[in-house]
Amino acid sequence: MDFEEIVSNRRAVNFFNPDKPIDPSLVKKMVEMASKTPSSFNLQPWNLIVLTEKEDKLRLQKCAMNQEKVSAAPVTMIVLADNEGFFEGHKTVEQVFQENIKAGTMTEKQRDWFQTARSRLYGKNEKTIQAFSCKNAGFFAMALMFAAKSLGIDSHPMDGFDHGKVMAKFNIPDNFYIPLLIAFGYFDETKSLPAPKWRKGYDDIVVRF
Amino acid sequence: MDFEEIVSNRRAVNFFNPDKPIDPSLVKKMVEMASKTPSSFNLQPWNLIVLTEKEDKLRLQKCAMNQEKVSAAPVTMIVLADNEGFFEGHKTVEQVFQENIKAGTMTEKQRDWFQTARSRLYGKNEKTIQAFSCKNAGFFAMALMFAAKSLGIDSHPMDGFDHGKVMAKFNIPDNFYIPLLIAFGYFDETKSLPAPKWRKGYDDIVVRF
Repeated sequence: MDFEEIVSNRRAVNFFNPDKPIDPSLVKKMVEMASKTPSSFNLQPWNLIVLTEKEDKLRLQKCAMNQEKVSAAPVTMIVLADNEGFFEGHKTVEQVFQENIKAGTMTEKQRDWFQTARSRLYGKNEKTIQAFSCKNAGFFAMALMFAAKSLGIDSHPMDGFDHGKVMAKFNIPDNFYIPLLIAFGYFDETKSLPAPKWRKGYDDIVVRF
Repeated sequence: MDFEEIVSNRRAVNFFNPDKPIDPSLVKKMVEMASKTPSSFNLQPWNLIVLTEKEDKLRLQKCAMNQEKVSAAPVTMIVLADNEGFFEGHKTVEQVFQENIKAGTMTEKQRDWFQTARSRLYGKNEKTIQAFSCKNAGFFAMALMFAAKSLGIDSHPMDGFDHGKVMAKFNIPDNFYIPLLIAFGYFDETKSLPAPKWRKGYDDIVVRF
């Protein structure tokens, strides 16, 4: 499937075939494909909680306006955006720095510069922190849905959940923000998919002031 | 090119061939492909300022730590995330509502419900507003870079710019936030591309608390 087909055929699917699980190797494959997503300074401030057990999915469903697809989908993920993902001392930040040294793209002497650049760009205030984490997690979530589609797996991104409740029920540490949940599975062919939704055209998107 | 090739071969390119413009029809094509990106309630809170004139790109470069690629790339875009993109009365919100009525997926009677849902989910505070706009703009920007790659066009997402200066120099209204800039063009084959950067693996990404 070429990208034009993927981007055109990817649809938010409301009904998943409850009898068609996703092979665990495909779940791994789609996460690994999405791991190539670009990010700010390569900091990759994203994580996933992957739910496959009915009990876990029902627990999430209760925090998500009781939307049936949350538990009907064979795999439902909680996407996490890491608001501390640019902090000095963060495990990934340190690894990115060390890998850059190894690759010869940074030197140990640039540690201060690297830290100052990160905190100046992302640590200014709550808005810049949230933009950093949610934009990058957005890149990753989008890549994950495209990767799924390229493997024949349907998805449904969801905002309809109680953020505080999901944080509490899944013991998610405070450094994370949940930009969305995503249900993954195979479309239930006994249902019908509505026509593709209206989209803004080129002239609505491109502006000048 | 299948998606696995796209996601693996997409690289942030630092050097663009200054003598190889992008055909305007391809710029349009990649924006139209990316317009299929999913978004919260289909609200599509994103816009683009597309710069192709040297003078405009140099103006942007001055606000972006003087990074040469900003003006060397044939096309550089300012990605805009619309923080009012869920407001009642917003042009796109109204059109989404009308298109849903036309498609039979909503009725005029659901106007209040639709407004309450949006303001409850996104309008709670600065964090939820920023998550709404930057996550969705992140989806769109990611799709745009994949669309470009699928058309043979390289890109470079950039955070290294002075947000306030770009807002001022391009007269961008206050309802917008700029999550990133993206340079588009063709890799300058006289330069060499460094090895792909380190990425977190499946076991670093998937967590449980």
